Amino acid sequence: MHTQTQAAAETLTFKPLEIDTYQEHVIYMHRDCVVCHAEGFSAQTRVQVSTGAGAQSLIATLNVVGDALLAPSQVGLSSGASQQLGVAAGDIIAVTHAPGLESLRAVRSKIHGNPLDAPQLCAIMGDISAGRYSDVHIAAFLSACAGGRMTTQETVDLTCAMLDTGDRLDWDRPVVADKHCVGGLPGNRTSPIVVAICAAAGLLLPKTSSRAITSPAGTADTMEVLTRVTLSAAEMRRVVERVGAALVWGGSLTLSPADDVLIRVERALEIDSDAQLVASVLSKKLAAGSTHVLIDVPLGPTAKVRTDADLARLRLLLEEVARAFGMHVLVVHTDGSQPVGRGIGPALEARDVLAVLQGAESAPADLRGRALLLSASLMEFCGAVPAGQGLALATRLLADGAAWAKFQAICEAQGGLRQPGSAPLRREILAPADGIVTSIDNRLLSRAAKLAGAPNRKAAGIDMHVRLNDAVRAGQPLFTIHALAQGELAYSQNFLTTHPAINIGTTEQR
Amino acid sequence: MHTQTQAAAETLTFKPLEIDTYQEHVIYMHRDCVVCHAEGFSAQTRVQVSTGAGAQSLIATLNVVGDALLAPSQVGLSSGASQQLGVAAGDIIAVTHAPGLESLRAVRSKIHGNPLDAPQLCAIMGDISAGRYSDVHIAAFLSACAGGRMTTQETVDLTCAMLDTGDRLDWDRPVVADKHCVGGLPGNRTSPIVVAICAAAGLLLPKTSSRAITSPAGTADTMEVLTRVTLSAAEMRRVVERVGAALVWGGSLTLSPADDVLIRVERALEIDSDAQLVASVLSKKLAAGSTHVLIDVPLGPTAKVRTDADLARLRLLLEEVARAFGMHVLVVHTDGSQPVGRGIGPALEARDVLAVLQGAESAPADLRGRALLLSASLMEFCGAVPAGQGLALATRLLADGAAWAKFQAICEAQGGLRQPGSAPLRREILAPADGIVTSIDNRLLSRAAKLAGAPNRKAAGIDMHVRLNDAVRAGQPLFTIHALAQGELAYSQNFLTTHPAINIGTTEQR
Repeated sequence: MHTQTQAAAETLTFKPLEIDTYQEHVIYMHRDCVVCHAEGFSAQTRVQVSTGAGAQSLIATLNVVGDALLAPSQVGLSSGASQQLGVAAGDIIAVTHAPGLESLRAVRSKIHGNPLDAPQLCAIMGDISAGRYSDVHIAAFLSACAGGRMTTQETVDLTCAMLDTGDRLDWDRPVVADKHCVGGLPGNRTSPIVVAICAAAGLLLPKTSSRAITSPAGTADTMEVLTRVTLSAAEMRRVVERVGAALVWGGSLTLSPADDVLIRVERALEIDSDAQLVASVLSKKLAAGSTHVLIDVPLGPTAKVRTDADLARLRLLLEEVARAFGMHVLVVHTDGSQPVGRGIGPALEARDVLAVLQGAESAPADLRGRALLLSASLMEFCGAVPAGQGLALATRLLADGAAWAKFQAICEAQGGLRQPGSAPLRREILAPADGIVTSIDNRLLSRAAKLAGAPNRKAAGIDMHVRLNDAVRAGQPLFTIHALAQGELAYSQNFLTTHPAINIGTTEQR
Repeated sequence: MHTQTQAAAETLTFKPLEIDTYQEHVIYMHRDCVVCHAEGFSAQTRVQVSTGAGAQSLIATLNVVGDALLAPSQVGLSSGASQQLGVAAGDIIAVTHAPGLESLRAVRSKIHGNPLDAPQLCAIMGDISAGRYSDVHIAAFLSACAGGRMTTQETVDLTCAMLDTGDRLDWDRPVVADKHCVGGLPGNRTSPIVVAICAAAGLLLPKTSSRAITSPAGTADTMEVLTRVTLSAAEMRRVVERVGAALVWGGSLTLSPADDVLIRVERALEIDSDAQLVASVLSKKLAAGSTHVLIDVPLGPTAKVRTDADLARLRLLLEEVARAFGMHVLVVHTDGSQPVGRGIGPALEARDVLAVLQGAESAPADLRGRALLLSASLMEFCGAVPAGQGLALATRLLADGAAWAKFQAICEAQGGLRQPGSAPLRREILAPADGIVTSIDNRLLSRAAKLAGAPNRKAAGIDMHVRLNDAVRAGQPLFTIHALAQGELAYSQNFLTTHPAINIGTTEQR
């Protein structure tokens, strides 16, 4: 019986179950599995899963299942885990107790109020990026570090530790420009325009962007409407060498991978931590090889940063941490009181971006103005133009078609420029009365655009027709919902009926 | 198409999948499910799941699956969630966005260093016991409260909030005695003996106990070897009215249910927090209606409490918080340097308990001595006997068979006394050399007993043959592993080969 048991333990085979748990790895084993019994595993035990050859392994959380899913000699894995291990149906899988995580001692030490040093932070980030922490462990780490409990030195060490978890691009150039927006403002898609203008001025701009996590579109989602964004590091290098800039999805590269894991749990907790934000942004930019980074911080009552004091604290920390790495950052705060441009959603935002670059009559003036201002600041900051002359240069490069030509060259080099699609279903939302637009809620509009299908359905979203302080007439369209399915159109509209995102005041209230 | 989509959204049906995720609720929906698309759900979204009638609902985390598990119009639930909702195959299930959790604002406030008040703690505990928090949220709460960040007042308010999440037993008697052990010491099964002795002396002792969470046996597991322990509150009351005491599993009752949820995440984090420990123990005892509680704190290098300073801090907090509720606690510290009795595992410990109660020659002297000491302290503390006379009374009640008669009466009232079973497979572990037992690792022995099958296999575990400072000869048995399967016997033995739990020193080292 002994031999039988051990033989069985050695021949657990993989059965695909197609269960998507996002980034949290889960293993499914039968309640009568001999390995479960022999190892003393039960539901939620953390186990180490290895391929038969032992070449690949990861840590996963156990779910115990019955006959409906597996036979006792089979194991299932969440989609992310099976992809990471590269296993197919019938492959041999070995399962053992997860090794103790030494770095959790450092997390507990931080919970008890002790500062973390560089080796401790490196060990924690290494374990997190290798998938050895459960979400519970990550939440404990984030909570212990939030609430102003990280010193500047700890933030520097955290940035360095996150950087060390991934690859680093090296451009062998004294000035590598970049821009980043702290986010929270729907439609604020200035990056493609800024990259085109500044690259037209001769700056090197190898820009990596994220996809939406909780918003209706990330820059990578919007750019994907127009061209291919899933480039390898080698492909990106060829594009940048040819045209001086790129606009790619950072997820195709391995830049600060611990950041991607942390961000997911941060969103679930809705924890705002300056230290985590700074380490997240700067580790990504350092990994991308940037030397000069403009950071756009929208400021407004429904934006991410809401007060001048918050802004001042964030600015100081960004500058101090960047200095420790010899990186130059320029923090620019912009108006965060309402969405930017007209479109909210990948294709609608791409349409606005093209309109600005092509100098169309219809181009949203606010998106154009912001992009020019940020381009001017970045060019002056990088020394590409003398102080005070950036805006004139940016305006000229946009007006004479140089920026548009550069943008087309970038897209061609990445795989060809595509036209944004449009949604077949639309519904206008009308002003209920005469009056003035007194407030616009960024968060509700983002939510409505997501209910309409963005970002997964590229053409879905919201198209704005009014801005703050506009006078409107009863029955005049405030915005149009774009959707690909009637159900989604109805969901978005119903949500907005109970959560009006635009407030219309009477003239007296103004 | 609109009508079609809405109709489909209203007729998602439940399919049993038998996936045990322990206490974390998970819902499984098909990637092409119209509700997923329409609501904008993706993997890890928190959703509200309701029965068709809307009578029951809970919050669950979404896993997105493919055709292998579900059709697009079906939903699956983790076992715990389907039990809580009481759904069967084909039942109608409604799924909507989870409502925002107001109490998470209080958690974030605590993370930022602000104290929590009573209403905030009540809201947090209410949401936790109702299953509205994900493990990530619970981990953040625990981390924010650990590390000495809770004042005594906050600990009082937390205890009250946990108490309010469940039922309260009321015995309408001025003195209701109880005992609790802080834990961490294998084989320390004094409770059944103390309850029998003190009840024989006339004390009311309606004792609720837990099952093992990370240990090889809890008191409920050991008692279940001897009698039925899954009594309802009404059944427990009838037993106590008849014989003056009971020894039941607390999980059958609803006493401080938030505690059960918190403990699970605490164990995963291995966070030791005095505030959480005190609120956990005292809320359970207050809910059970106890007025006088003896708390046994084993002190030792591999026990839970390791230093005199830790003990003093814990004692003070226990006393202060208990006082706020008018409950009397007596903190007694005991030797925590080695296991108690001989058996480690439910049936082996039950055998030791019976031997002590029956006055057998073979009864372990240390278990008997501890039980007498704790009984004496509890009887004096409750005023059942004048100070200084407790030990004599306890010794007499044990010697004259009164305690054994009371124990039999308790078991008969609960459903009948059973004899412990024994394991068919045994392996002796021998001393490698002549020498002295210089140290015994409680944690390694617990782990080995679990690998042998305890607590799920009642008769499995470890039977100790030596104690600290015993002189041993090479080849003499140190302990015996008991198991029901060869594989488990081998696992336990292999673990002990690489992790020797007993250190044998030479006479010189002594």
